[in-house]
Amino acid sequence: MTPVPGAAWIAADWGTSNLRLWALDDRGGTVAHRSSEKGMGRLTREEFEPALLELAGELLTEGVRTPVIVCGMAGARQGWAEAAYLTAPCRPPSLNEATLVATTDPRLDVRILPGVRQLDPPDVMRGEETQIAGFLADEPAYAGLLCLPGTHTKWVTVQDGRIASFRTFMTGELFALLSGQSVLRHGLSDKDMDGDAFRKAVVDAAETPAGIAAALFGIRAAGLVAELSPEAARGRLSGLLIGAELAALRDGIGEGPVAILGSDSLAGAYRDALDCLGRSARLLDAQTLTLKGLALARSSAEKETS
Amino acid sequence: MTPVPGAAWIAADWGTSNLRLWALDDRGGTVAHRSSEKGMGRLTREEFEPALLELAGELLTEGVRTPVIVCGMAGARQGWAEAAYLTAPCRPPSLNEATLVATTDPRLDVRILPGVRQLDPPDVMRGEETQIAGFLADEPAYAGLLCLPGTHTKWVTVQDGRIASFRTFMTGELFALLSGQSVLRHGLSDKDMDGDAFRKAVVDAAETPAGIAAALFGIRAAGLVAELSPEAARGRLSGLLIGAELAALRDGIGEGPVAILGSDSLAGAYRDALDCLGRSARLLDAQTLTLKGLALARSSAEKETS
Repeated sequence: MTPVPGAAWIAADWGTSNLRLWALDDRGGTVAHRSSEKGMGRLTREEFEPALLELAGELLTEGVRTPVIVCGMAGARQGWAEAAYLTAPCRPPSLNEATLVATTDPRLDVRILPGVRQLDPPDVMRGEETQIAGFLADEPAYAGLLCLPGTHTKWVTVQDGRIASFRTFMTGELFALLSGQSVLRHGLSDKDMDGDAFRKAVVDAAETPAGIAAALFGIRAAGLVAELSPEAARGRLSGLLIGAELAALRDGIGEGPVAILGSDSLAGAYRDALDCLGRSARLLDAQTLTLKGLALARSSAEKETS
Repeated sequence: MTPVPGAAWIAADWGTSNLRLWALDDRGGTVAHRSSEKGMGRLTREEFEPALLELAGELLTEGVRTPVIVCGMAGARQGWAEAAYLTAPCRPPSLNEATLVATTDPRLDVRILPGVRQLDPPDVMRGEETQIAGFLADEPAYAGLLCLPGTHTKWVTVQDGRIASFRTFMTGELFALLSGQSVLRHGLSDKDMDGDAFRKAVVDAAETPAGIAAALFGIRAAGLVAELSPEAARGRLSGLLIGAELAALRDGIGEGPVAILGSDSLAGAYRDALDCLGRSARLLDAQTLTLKGLALARSSAEKETS
């Protein structure tokens, strides 16, 4: 086996559930890509450096401080080191605004990029701002909406290279709680989803979003009195939640472009739901954009210090 | 100590989480009132009779079959014995429509009252129909809405002594999941609730119910960037969920009387929320109405068989 060459720098997306990192050479080529489930949610402050070394230790070179640029929840107050928020409207953060982390291994130079907050209405993001930076690297003149699907899906209005405003929906977390732990779990397929039931539910919820808590119980009732299939029940649950979310955004999504920063099945569900309401959207790969955003942060700092 | 006298009959409210029973003499007086946490959700089919005897065994008389009249989830398909639903619109069920349960103890004569289903939109209740029967015993000419607060709050339109239609909201279960297990738990008081925050949230959600999943995340964000107190966060969570529910009912609650079958803090929260929207409602004690409904079912059967 060829030994892994030392990295010129390391890019890390350190979220609540996962740590993903890329080791890169000086021309932007990836020499290694690794991930673990040691997300911020499972670690005490002292456990971050060992978790990083476990994944990246052999990529470091003795006698050299390798830059590690981190985005995400590792910068939260309960994370490795707090990286104070920028306040929207703002450009995505650069490395000059990052927090230098005290480490014990002399091979590490770790900096955590800040998240972005909004004061009115209050909202926060950590990690998504770096995806947005990656998106803006390719499309600096974009004016429109970005959808970042996830446990807490974010809808971001972008203009003039800036994060103008944003809004976070707990839709993904609601889906997980309702499908896994509520009375609805009894009649729900574990994985298969009926697309027709999904699309009908999107339209139903977009028309009458206020009744969501009743429509949700209706899934259980339809299983008891109308023999709704488990696949249709799963589709309907997802469609109701996403449809209500789109109803809340209706003014925003009624015009202008929409790009979805994601390419998994959840991102596909958002695209299908938008399609039900007569809107089209592009899908872009989120991890690719995160890496691009981290690289951009590094190169902007190089420019500023050179 | 005076021994407990044998009961003429036993009334039982057997829900998902609890079993509550009353032993009654022939003049309607209660000789004992007992409860346990052996709700339907914890019992296999074979465990129902022992759970009943554990609470009621000493209230039975040797050589006599004592009637036990049961309402609630014990009659579900996964319960003790399935009591097929009546279909709304309908009167609350009488004992003639109850299911006789096979028991091994010769002192028991157990009958489970049916629940009520609605076909379009699909909905179901088990137990609440008996509270409604108790309410109608006192107010047979009532025409208006009944609110039955709980894990799955029910709003029932009553007219001409009948359950005309109803709608179930998962509001209580959503509150439990979000306060106990979602990201919101970090900033939430365990018990104390700020009333002003509750009332403001009711009005906010009633005005823009579609944005509920964003408003929910806003509680977390306000804790991070605007120092929302844990008591205000709890009040706001409850108010947003109940406010959205009332928004969905706005056409229904805009006119006519509203009575709340409940007298606990949740019932009080519903009354306060209605008050925020300019509607007043009475509170009535739910357990008293359940017992009254069970007694009514028994006496109606006596009349029909005499």
